[in-house]
Amino acid sequence: MTTTESRTTELAEPQMLGFLAQLGIDVEFTRAEGDTLFYRDAGGREVPVLDFAGGYGALILGHNHPEIVGAAHEFLSAGRPVLAQASRQSDPAAVVGLLNTILRREFGDPEPYYGVFANSGAEAVEVAMKHAEFARVLRVRELLTEIETHLTDAVEAVRSGAARVPEQVLRDLGVAPGDGLDAAAERVRAAAAACAARPPVFLTFAGSFHGKLAGSIQLTHNADFRVPFAGMAAGARFIAFEEPGAVARAVEAERAEVPELLVDGDEIRLARRPFPVVAAFVLEVIQGEGGIRTVSAPIAAEVRAAADAAGFPVVVDEIQSGMGRTGAFFAAAHLQLRPDYVVLAKGLGGGLAKTALTLIRESFYRPDFELLHSSTFARDGFSTALALRALRVLEADGGAVYRLAERAGERLRGTLEKVRADFPDIVAEVRGRGLMLGVEFHEQSASPLHPLREADTAGILGYVFSGYLFGAHRIRTFPTASAVRTLRLEPSAHLDDESIAELDGALRTLCTLLRAGDPRLFGVV
Amino acid sequence: MTTTESRTTELAEPQMLGFLAQLGIDVEFTRAEGDTLFYRDAGGREVPVLDFAGGYGALILGHNHPEIVGAAHEFLSAGRPVLAQASRQSDPAAVVGLLNTILRREFGDPEPYYGVFANSGAEAVEVAMKHAEFARVLRVRELLTEIETHLTDAVEAVRSGAARVPEQVLRDLGVAPGDGLDAAAERVRAAAAACAARPPVFLTFAGSFHGKLAGSIQLTHNADFRVPFAGMAAGARFIAFEEPGAVARAVEAERAEVPELLVDGDEIRLARRPFPVVAAFVLEVIQGEGGIRTVSAPIAAEVRAAADAAGFPVVVDEIQSGMGRTGAFFAAAHLQLRPDYVVLAKGLGGGLAKTALTLIRESFYRPDFELLHSSTFARDGFSTALALRALRVLEADGGAVYRLAERAGERLRGTLEKVRADFPDIVAEVRGRGLMLGVEFHEQSASPLHPLREADTAGILGYVFSGYLFGAHRIRTFPTASAVRTLRLEPSAHLDDESIAELDGALRTLCTLLRAGDPRLFGVV
Repeated sequence: MTTTESRTTELAEPQMLGFLAQLGIDVEFTRAEGDTLFYRDAGGREVPVLDFAGGYGALILGHNHPEIVGAAHEFLSAGRPVLAQASRQSDPAAVVGLLNTILRREFGDPEPYYGVFANSGAEAVEVAMKHAEFARVLRVRELLTEIETHLTDAVEAVRSGAARVPEQVLRDLGVAPGDGLDAAAERVRAAAAACAARPPVFLTFAGSFHGKLAGSIQLTHNADFRVPFAGMAAGARFIAFEEPGAVARAVEAERAEVPELLVDGDEIRLARRPFPVVAAFVLEVIQGEGGIRTVSAPIAAEVRAAADAAGFPVVVDEIQSGMGRTGAFFAAAHLQLRPDYVVLAKGLGGGLAKTALTLIRESFYRPDFELLHSSTFARDGFSTALALRALRVLEADGGAVYRLAERAGERLRGTLEKVRADFPDIVAEVRGRGLMLGVEFHEQSASPLHPLREADTAGILGYVFSGYLFGAHRIRTFPTASAVRTLRLEPSAHLDDESIAELDGALRTLCTLLRAGDPRLFGVV
Repeated sequence: MTTTESRTTELAEPQMLGFLAQLGIDVEFTRAEGDTLFYRDAGGREVPVLDFAGGYGALILGHNHPEIVGAAHEFLSAGRPVLAQASRQSDPAAVVGLLNTILRREFGDPEPYYGVFANSGAEAVEVAMKHAEFARVLRVRELLTEIETHLTDAVEAVRSGAARVPEQVLRDLGVAPGDGLDAAAERVRAAAAACAARPPVFLTFAGSFHGKLAGSIQLTHNADFRVPFAGMAAGARFIAFEEPGAVARAVEAERAEVPELLVDGDEIRLARRPFPVVAAFVLEVIQGEGGIRTVSAPIAAEVRAAADAAGFPVVVDEIQSGMGRTGAFFAAAHLQLRPDYVVLAKGLGGGLAKTALTLIRESFYRPDFELLHSSTFARDGFSTALALRALRVLEADGGAVYRLAERAGERLRGTLEKVRADFPDIVAEVRGRGLMLGVEFHEQSASPLHPLREADTAGILGYVFSGYLFGAHRIRTFPTASAVRTLRLEPSAHLDDESIAELDGALRTLCTLLRAGDPRLFGVV
């Protein structure tokens, strides 16, 4: 390797590469197909690796699905425009149209959803957050205008002698009776202005992950990822996961009211108006990076009820759980949690293109948002054409891919549950739904292997398992980022029984070595 | 059109489509090549449109450059992996390596830059902001640790009798002499904690545009785009553009100090430590959406000097100005403004793929950032392979594309200047450098044409011109988003003289109609 070449290797995230090298997984893959990645060994031979990482959930159709690759070749050969912003584009429209058909089928509601495109899941979450905050700000403005109108009416009514102000109203506003209505009006205006100056509140569950941009990182529970950037944006409130009543308590804790003065016959009356503090409730119905944890139907119903009562939207992040991975297109369909906003990314580009989409229900949609928000790349011809093809592949043959995902998921889960049953001292739990599964391991703080105890303390136990499975079994899987004892399995819908058997054997060997405290766990790394 | 089809058209940003229809530019382009977009008319004939919008600056190589399209076909035919996160990847490394070669050439500095990939320009700006804030927070922590250590030393020295606290020190901290050192220590800790709790400050120029995500929107000066989301993130300070001394004044206004107590011989001394409040200065060296306005070399030197003195980084946003558009790869090279961070996007994917990159100079780089920040799509195989090819096309033949861009830019600018000279009552100014040019029109508030006066008042004058140029001349160009009387011209480096002549004729006709108050300006729309 020349100096220049080694130099270049060092400059693109060298720290991360060093970590991968430590785990023995720093190979360069040269080809990919279905659930298999290939690299070339020192002798130039192609070595297959069974990929359960699945592009962090983006590969529901597998690597290089022939129809998606074919669509890409077709697009390029036709010389179609990639970047023709501010023109009519039928593919983005068709993508949103087809998703509306799917939404109607899975949630049984005819109300349409409008679509705003983005370039990544994190961007699409930001679009959802921005739209929710825009809608909240508009509601605040409407409220302030109404309060001001009522105030003017009240002042006018008192001036003209048509109404009087009871002393109790002044006392309730903390105004001395002598100071009169002007002081009271000032109090009302000050209270409204103080409320309006508060930053928005986003509600989400503990364990959530919604991306790592300046906005979305605030919704990501992992403190390592979030806290260094706490000064950059409005914070979120994290609500205990799967704790009955916690959602309602959190909403109640954020409840705010502002006073207003109303003419009521010949008297001025003091009323209290609810003030919209919460911009949105944002949730994954199956938490991904948080350890593959599923929201239950009763808790989903609590979220829906709290949002309906308070008037803020429920934003369902289906970036990882959507696109058919759980047997339905939307994981929220299993809970019948109708989203007000729904966010898609990862698999939307068919595993090839980068695209993302935020869908917003008509009754929550503020069309002027389109004039405020834009992106050079978001509606590009290439990625929206591939998104359309990916959706058509999923919907073909009456949703054959969803059925494949469901069945492969059941077989995979059954296999994992049997491993757990045979190694209950090693495997703590199997979680998830369809092809979004997690295997949580027990801690290894009492292992006779010193490096294993150390890895557990350092929070990289799952990565050691990744290294072992790769080195000894040519299987690729990673822990979830915020629950690092949980290995995440997100293969394609085309996963076959042979691959499941391979994983089964590899996990059983891993469990046997762990139980025995066998150093071969590290020997191959 | 069936109901379903018309329905789908309505759901993907219908408001924007309505606006385009109003301007008569809502055609669907079916093919693109070089500087030409094609649509089919009612008779099915292909109609060419000369494209000066250039994908908002992403098409320095033109639409569907054969080498980029070829690279895409090759990549797909080889079955190379698109999504193989957490593996060794030579293309991202080669992209960063090649950009380091270019940086060394243009800024004459051997210090390397590290690269972090993203999916869009706005994301890459957020990466820069996150990294800058991470670095600031680490500096704050280091400072607090030092202050605490010195405090402990001071307390120990006084307890042991080795040093005494002068009363003046206590008075300077606002502590009564009787309360002693413990009270003083509390004051020091409280002051440090109060400073540490403040959100970071980002400095930027009035007129700036750095994207529309929750973080980057805070750096975007246009109040329409920014203010509705003010509650979502730490704000920026906007500094008067091209005003000598303004940068130093803004930095001075943000200066903060915290007290610390030091053992100085046998006395305790009160010192003041500068506190890092500013995370970064972020600027475009040629403002794009702000109206194609160029930062001058003396102002760039003021930014550099202020940053060096205060110790915060200069983040140069080259998303629109970079990739050779101005005749150098980096527009900052013309000013010899060496960036501490530099942000690329738009043309980096060769006009086909979506990719973006934040490069950070070694002395500012915090490697642990790699473990905090990540993205499913950011280092994908497809877009990084195309980025590498795009850079190689630009660098080929000793940078022939840069010379093409420079010469085409000179010819285009010369033509525009002549139009201005012939129509000084219509055209106010021609601005920019290379192929990043803006033509500012005078206001039309006194036009005899009522709809033109209305359009000017509504802030859509430039869009009316776009509609006219498209409808009557089949030329595509748009106003800059935040300076809507300025038309932006960003064609490819391969722009030919015939195209320049076409634009010349069209602009002269537009100016003639404007001068005459001729309603044909609207007739064709």
